[in-house]
Amino acid sequence: MIEQIDNILLHDCQIHKTEVLLVGVSGGPDSLFLLHVLNKNGYKVVAAHINHKLRPEADEEARFVRRFAEQLGIAYTGREVDVQGYASERKIATEEAARILRYETLFEQADRLGAQAVLVGHTADDQVETILMHLLRGSGISGLRGMQYCTLPNPWSKHIMLARPLLSTWRADIMRYLEQNQINPAFDQTNLDTAYFRNRVRHELLPTLMEYAPHFRQNLLRLGQVSRDDYDLIQENVDAAWDTFNTAQEPEYLAFHRTGFTHLPPSIQRYLLRRAIEWFIPGMTDVDFECIERGRNFLAEDKPSGQVDLMAGVRLIREAKTFWVTSLNDLPVPEYPQISAAESIFLPVPGKVRVNNGWVLEAAQVSKIEQIGAWEKANADRYQAWFDMEKLKGPLVLRARKSGDRIQPEGLGGHSIKVSDLMINQKLPARARRKWPLVCCGDEVLWVPGYRLSSQASVDQGSTTIIHLKLVRDLGT
Amino acid sequence: MIEQIDNILLHDCQIHKTEVLLVGVSGGPDSLFLLHVLNKNGYKVVAAHINHKLRPEADEEARFVRRFAEQLGIAYTGREVDVQGYASERKIATEEAARILRYETLFEQADRLGAQAVLVGHTADDQVETILMHLLRGSGISGLRGMQYCTLPNPWSKHIMLARPLLSTWRADIMRYLEQNQINPAFDQTNLDTAYFRNRVRHELLPTLMEYAPHFRQNLLRLGQVSRDDYDLIQENVDAAWDTFNTAQEPEYLAFHRTGFTHLPPSIQRYLLRRAIEWFIPGMTDVDFECIERGRNFLAEDKPSGQVDLMAGVRLIREAKTFWVTSLNDLPVPEYPQISAAESIFLPVPGKVRVNNGWVLEAAQVSKIEQIGAWEKANADRYQAWFDMEKLKGPLVLRARKSGDRIQPEGLGGHSIKVSDLMINQKLPARARRKWPLVCCGDEVLWVPGYRLSSQASVDQGSTTIIHLKLVRDLGT
Repeated sequence: MIEQIDNILLHDCQIHKTEVLLVGVSGGPDSLFLLHVLNKNGYKVVAAHINHKLRPEADEEARFVRRFAEQLGIAYTGREVDVQGYASERKIATEEAARILRYETLFEQADRLGAQAVLVGHTADDQVETILMHLLRGSGISGLRGMQYCTLPNPWSKHIMLARPLLSTWRADIMRYLEQNQINPAFDQTNLDTAYFRNRVRHELLPTLMEYAPHFRQNLLRLGQVSRDDYDLIQENVDAAWDTFNTAQEPEYLAFHRTGFTHLPPSIQRYLLRRAIEWFIPGMTDVDFECIERGRNFLAEDKPSGQVDLMAGVRLIREAKTFWVTSLNDLPVPEYPQISAAESIFLPVPGKVRVNNGWVLEAAQVSKIEQIGAWEKANADRYQAWFDMEKLKGPLVLRARKSGDRIQPEGLGGHSIKVSDLMINQKLPARARRKWPLVCCGDEVLWVPGYRLSSQASVDQGSTTIIHLKLVRDLGT
Repeated sequence: MIEQIDNILLHDCQIHKTEVLLVGVSGGPDSLFLLHVLNKNGYKVVAAHINHKLRPEADEEARFVRRFAEQLGIAYTGREVDVQGYASERKIATEEAARILRYETLFEQADRLGAQAVLVGHTADDQVETILMHLLRGSGISGLRGMQYCTLPNPWSKHIMLARPLLSTWRADIMRYLEQNQINPAFDQTNLDTAYFRNRVRHELLPTLMEYAPHFRQNLLRLGQVSRDDYDLIQENVDAAWDTFNTAQEPEYLAFHRTGFTHLPPSIQRYLLRRAIEWFIPGMTDVDFECIERGRNFLAEDKPSGQVDLMAGVRLIREAKTFWVTSLNDLPVPEYPQISAAESIFLPVPGKVRVNNGWVLEAAQVSKIEQIGAWEKANADRYQAWFDMEKLKGPLVLRARKSGDRIQPEGLGGHSIKVSDLMINQKLPARARRKWPLVCCGDEVLWVPGYRLSSQASVDQGSTTIIHLKLVRDLGT
């Protein structure tokens, strides 16, 4: 038993025997046992008692823990917390308030004392109850692991670990040890922390289940152990998938390769989405199954764009090749030329019009097709266009698309198509479409920069006044 | 609901709508529903009823199923089985006998009719009970999957699948469907198959658990679904590990690279050992946790050899670089030169002595060290040795090692070491040591072929009569 605890601390938690360990000691059997065993085994322990001030005997218990530590020559630190005040201020249950304040205070003390870890006395019995409650409330393998020997980072610290070295030690063995060592816990406080539901599980449900299977508690503890290792293995697979298919990670959004994701095994898809949600809601472990399946089904649909809410403001945005997980309403589109949906800007020739995100539309005039320089021709890209000025029916304007906009692209024999369809077919990213700048003449769309040119004002050998348009990104000015 | 069943059959089971499906129909609501729905959806179903002859109404039920099928224009096949006879002959419980005979007969019928699958009507309710029973009796993720939509191969056939397309359909929905379609099951036979334990779980434990968590049944069904996918993912990892580290697979033994195995994540180690045990006990799913951990701990020990029993005659044999899983008491050692432990064979010079597994020890004589040919020298390997004949105190014999055997290896300054230690240090495989041929002269061990030569009869420039020994494998004669 003692060897197992040593093994958990040294191997699973990677604790150094030379470092200070802060042990949370309520005065109940589990924490007294933990303190006693660690002290005996040469760990540098400090006993920390948090006085919740909830019951008449609370002060006496604090003195009891102090005396116990002093008798063993163990350093002691005690703190009082105002549970009732905190509970009514935050409008939370007393037990929850006690739990939050207790951990907060323990970690404050650990930080002050330069401790490597805060150790608490959760036992195998607690672990079995936790696993059973996860089963009842609905859980996958993640919850079946129960509590962990070592949690770092944890909600209270990024560098001080929370360790639970007694998770494989049964309370019956603890009681036997205490008896053999003539240690009398002042009282059994084990029920203090536990809410009503846990108490019912402990005192009613578990005994019932053991009538069906006498080894049920051992079986559940073991399920926790194998689930932990299975979970770790699956997470290694998820790490690899994330590294392979993640294409952007920023505080407000994540991007992944869409077909890469949809070809992953369902198991990896689920955990990857869970991890993506946790990116925006750190510490979120209660992501429900429906939410994950909604996301997976949405991504599996063979549609180029769209979005779906996952939970708590986190949504999925689907594009042709990429999907985004984001806490934003709209993804930022810093890389694309964008124009306000309401604007309609006159385009002087020659001249320049500035659009969003550092892009500039430059218009120049040449009098003959031969005057388009060799360099220009060689470097002509999808962000350049030439028009025959004489074919234009009015001035050029720059605006965003309107409902019903059509274009007659070159090469389609005068056939016109909807601008919105063109944007979809050309895989212009969905979130950039609405504000994409269009070069128009009256109601006529002449150019969707980057995508298609209209045949309406095409340049030919007879053209004598040619307008050269160029959309360039100019972040320097 | 119907769409889901279709999806399971076409996607999960890969069933072809053009193939014959044999549906096991007891006459209870689940199987009547299954038959009705499949028929309506255009599957080519045959209704098969197995009459267990256990209850007075059994014959009437058989007629009922026949009529039901005929009214829908579905082909029908009925068989009677002697459950009581089989149960008393095999000394097994009636329910177990009924189950075995039922499946055997269904698969016989399916084979006769050229069916692609045998379909049975297990529902989501049955699935939840199965998962809960696995939880009670102790299980990892494998058991938490519950029953599978599709099992192939299965204990009854290698090519006809066992399909359970109703595993995600709740019985309440089935009852509603039957009512809407005015189908009256003759009786509710759902309890017939189920043993006492399952009935207690269904009627007592599940209702109790649902008092703690109203969605417990749904939660458990979902746990089954995610466990299935997690399990499949883990198995992909196990496949890869097996392919990488398996070095031999024969009906009686498997061999694996030992350090490769010990560096695998614990999760993969466990499933790989499970799979290795199943290699010898096909269909074995009930491998207990202790057995697997015993194996893992044994393999993790930093000792060169040894063996440990796993279960049911399957054992692990550990060597320096390899470990074996085997159903044999001793591994066969076909590749090694071996000699009967009792023999002591005179070695004529020149001459040949045949040892086991196709090896031959050849002795030749040369009169001067220069006469050892260039080819021989160039090709000298650890299976060749030269002795100065004049330094020998008697004739050469070939024998297995004896307790207390020592050798004075060349290069140790006359210091002698135990032959058994030498074998261990030189990593001679443990199972080949006892019968390894030694070349001796009286009690003196002169040569451990393949490993060490004694300094007792070393050849030098002054040697005039030299014996050349060569241990070669000669499978051609």
